Amino acid sequence: MENKIFKVSILTLFPEIFPGPLGVSLLGNALQNKLWELNLINIRDFAKDRHKSVDDTPYGGGAGMVMKPDVIEMALNSISDFPGQRVCLTPRGKRLSQQKVKKLSLEDGLVLLCGRYEGIDQRVIDYYNFDEISIGDYVVTGGESAAIVLLESVLRLLPNVLGGNETLKEESFSDTSLIEYPQYTKPKEWKGINVPEVLISGDHGKIKNWRNKERVKITKIRKLDT
Amino acid sequence: MENKIFKVSILTLFPEIFPGPLGVSLLGNALQNKLWELNLINIRDFAKDRHKSVDDTPYGGGAGMVMKPDVIEMALNSISDFPGQRVCLTPRGKRLSQQKVKKLSLEDGLVLLCGRYEGIDQRVIDYYNFDEISIGDYVVTGGESAAIVLLESVLRLLPNVLGGNETLKEESFSDTSLIEYPQYTKPKEWKGINVPEVLISGDHGKIKNWRNKERVKITKIRKLDT
Repeated sequence: MENKIFKVSILTLFPEIFPGPLGVSLLGNALQNKLWELNLINIRDFAKDRHKSVDDTPYGGGAGMVMKPDVIEMALNSISDFPGQRVCLTPRGKRLSQQKVKKLSLEDGLVLLCGRYEGIDQRVIDYYNFDEISIGDYVVTGGESAAIVLLESVLRLLPNVLGGNETLKEESFSDTSLIEYPQYTKPKEWKGINVPEVLISGDHGKIKNWRNKERVKITKIRKLDT
Repeated sequence: MENKIFKVSILTLFPEIFPGPLGVSLLGNALQNKLWELNLINIRDFAKDRHKSVDDTPYGGGAGMVMKPDVIEMALNSISDFPGQRVCLTPRGKRLSQQKVKKLSLEDGLVLLCGRYEGIDQRVIDYYNFDEISIGDYVVTGGESAAIVLLESVLRLLPNVLGGNETLKEESFSDTSLIEYPQYTKPKEWKGINVPEVLISGDHGKIKNWRNKERVKITKIRKLDT
């Protein structure tokens, strides 16, 4: 049986950024093994004037430039194979969660629109029903890094991308809302600091217990911290 | 007067990922103009055995591998010039906020540690007092994409990196906790959809009012949505 290919199209002004982190390690192997494919669309190729303008001043005034709806329309129309959800990475979007990541990983693919400058004309986002997603409450310089983060989180959930399925089980935000327990490896003593006794006790019940307590503890600390 | 250089060191198993999105557009120019500098440290160069192992099995059992404290120690020791906060990008970290971004942009530089696999031996994180930061409640494949996001958000706040300082003023999460208003540009009519009347009224008071209302509206929608 052949694997279904997860089809990713990215509309961007900086196609040279991709695959970037998506091209190394397990996701890079998955790209080579055709578990997913990457279709890059340079928005600038669809600019109509001889200056290749993709943006213009905002109506109503204000600093910066806004990406033009007609240019993005043309770029979108160039995609013949168009499976899955359309997503626009924008600080105006709903904050990404692992639940959302899981949902998106069940699609046949994704079409990602990366904003730059002051943003994208809202009409094109609304008209094409883009799902507006923000990766967090901070400001980056463009949608490209957000697209990388979103894709990393989605692609690793595709069948056969990660080595063992086990690593998907016990991780932060995956099964529960608890943060992961701390990890330790060799050497047993480093700089005079030993790994916690319990972890070398061989008592699996005790280890599980300790790890659960650590998860509750760190989750409490991080939440209070916020 | 010369600009102070913001010194970024990144400890990673995948130095080829960088500068990536940090190398294009305004941040790329700022890198060339020495407003910031990038010092990449390949953690694997500091592995001691002939297999170049950087990780080992976790104490207490469980899937995956954990990055070794002694190898990271050696990698850290290789950095001679070491200004600013040490940051470890990890899902166990405190969630990144724009407030934190601003704080980090006031440092003289940053030393970023990018985890891979199941994580990093907690002793090295604690011993070197790494600030543990998470970019959001979702799981990526490694700290590299998180480092890119963190650096993008921090570097754009450095003096002289963005063109005009004005663009820093009115953006989401910057001044207030409100999300940005929607943006519109030419053409005035696109697919039969006009830009909102008020924006072409020329009445600056009305425009400001409308934009504020839009910010409140979208913020309410996104927060209820969560």
